[in-house]
Amino acid sequence: MSNRIVVALGGNALGKNPKEQLELVKETAKPIVDLIQEGNNVIVAHGNGPQVGMINLAMEVSSKSDANTPEMPFPECGAMSQGYIGYHLQNAIREEFLNRNMKIPVSTVITQVIVDKDDSAFTNPTKPIGAFYTEEEAKKLEEEKGYDMKEDAGRGYRRVVPSPIPVDIAEKETVKTLVDNGHVVITVGGGGIPVIEDNNSLIGVPAVIDKDFASEKIAEILNADYLIILTAVEKVSINFGKENEQALGKLNIDDAYKYIDEGHFAPGSMLPKVRAAIKFAESKNGRKSLITSLEKAVDGIQGKTGTLIVK
Amino acid sequence: MSNRIVVALGGNALGKNPKEQLELVKETAKPIVDLIQEGNNVIVAHGNGPQVGMINLAMEVSSKSDANTPEMPFPECGAMSQGYIGYHLQNAIREEFLNRNMKIPVSTVITQVIVDKDDSAFTNPTKPIGAFYTEEEAKKLEEEKGYDMKEDAGRGYRRVVPSPIPVDIAEKETVKTLVDNGHVVITVGGGGIPVIEDNNSLIGVPAVIDKDFASEKIAEILNADYLIILTAVEKVSINFGKENEQALGKLNIDDAYKYIDEGHFAPGSMLPKVRAAIKFAESKNGRKSLITSLEKAVDGIQGKTGTLIVK
Repeated sequence: MSNRIVVALGGNALGKNPKEQLELVKETAKPIVDLIQEGNNVIVAHGNGPQVGMINLAMEVSSKSDANTPEMPFPECGAMSQGYIGYHLQNAIREEFLNRNMKIPVSTVITQVIVDKDDSAFTNPTKPIGAFYTEEEAKKLEEEKGYDMKEDAGRGYRRVVPSPIPVDIAEKETVKTLVDNGHVVITVGGGGIPVIEDNNSLIGVPAVIDKDFASEKIAEILNADYLIILTAVEKVSINFGKENEQALGKLNIDDAYKYIDEGHFAPGSMLPKVRAAIKFAESKNGRKSLITSLEKAVDGIQGKTGTLIVK
Repeated sequence: MSNRIVVALGGNALGKNPKEQLELVKETAKPIVDLIQEGNNVIVAHGNGPQVGMINLAMEVSSKSDANTPEMPFPECGAMSQGYIGYHLQNAIREEFLNRNMKIPVSTVITQVIVDKDDSAFTNPTKPIGAFYTEEEAKKLEEEKGYDMKEDAGRGYRRVVPSPIPVDIAEKETVKTLVDNGHVVITVGGGGIPVIEDNNSLIGVPAVIDKDFASEKIAEILNADYLIILTAVEKVSINFGKENEQALGKLNIDDAYKYIDEGHFAPGSMLPKVRAAIKFAESKNGRKSLITSLEKAVDGIQGKTGTLIVK
């Protein structure tokens, strides 16, 4: 068995602070290295929700303090989060390799994901980021900085940014060269730094690209066999949390669309995962998507568990 | 002419905030791309003094504020600075390539530099980082966190960290694979994230590795022909700033050591550059180091200016 596999990790699984993250990545590294030890070629993608939120908040707070550090745009915060997470993740994978006497280079590539400036998401920003503000402060930010501010579940106002669809990966040649040479690459961290093309320039935009869609995009580009989307549950369920909940072992695309239409998958949670899984399975014959938990990833690839989405 | 060249950029040349940095990297990209257009194989290293200082300060300020973001260790701040700087630098180089119809992939690799835990620098920390404190606050930090605090030129107390010598580059195989495939790689940002080896682990340590020494190390590992250390002046001078100042076109190693002994080069400024240049020139026959300004880099490689240090 030797498959090319893109593994998408959730940002929530990486913890809320550097100490937690250092511990959690050790657990994350094990199934990743298991997959590689079985002969697979693995590319690691990850979310960054809590981490980029923390960095963005800290830069915001400090810029308004006596320290007077510069305001840091959101894409730059994303670049920072890729360095911060990648550093811990690559070390955990490296250590797990060495513990098993495997000598495989692992590294993090700062990765930008190109989005379309005409993506309809830009007219409907939905992703909350950064600090909470009062209504008055929120109005001031809207006027002064052109931010979109929305009330967030009774907790105050927050800036919201769009979540556009990935069109291309700026560093795809870099990732491909490393993967083709047998390296393990950590890429599209946090869904990638969102950029738009303006002639020969790439310009960072305040946006959050869904890490499942960014992972799907790099999986297509690298001609992967599998996209594994890791989540908190072993299998995708319909009627989730209800008496008639039913875990799905295999899901064909027609059924997947039907279940989406019936509202079985929560937006911002299982829905983007299922959509990304469908997109990859539909992109070419033979491509498979697997949604399962970190612990079950190896069993999942062996067909023993998880939800397999196929064309 | 086709040489393999490591170019070391100063962190000060990257500006104090993201807006400045975005502008400055455009100027930085031009001579780098000039060198590549002439057929050279270029690896880009850079400092991060002002940038990691700013990130470290912001994380510190925010962690003590109501925002209560986590305390961020210094190596993690270094990893963030590599993402932040690399993102801008890789885009500027990419744009300059496209403006000249050159299609060469460029990327940033999060890079750790391994230092020796027994390096004597660890017993004599000298590099100030982060915020200024009162004497009282400084004493508290020494007791509570084990920081080394030193009075900094009448401006208050600051934490000081050691500046150990690089021993190896953890991601050298990644950088080598990319460079051998004709890619441009941004690496050892800020001298690299400082780590020590502990069995199979790499453990981040609060330290600042001189970016000139880290650049020298990667130049040796990649078997480069040239190490170019960019600075504010076109040539290294003896009797700098005096009436009898003399700019040096070529400098052999014996003279270089003599001038060092005579105190011609300022510690923390030209001295580490000259020392790194000597180290590279001494490392193997035919290896050359060049110290010059960004604008003169191409002329320097063509033998027209700069200070060439040879064995």
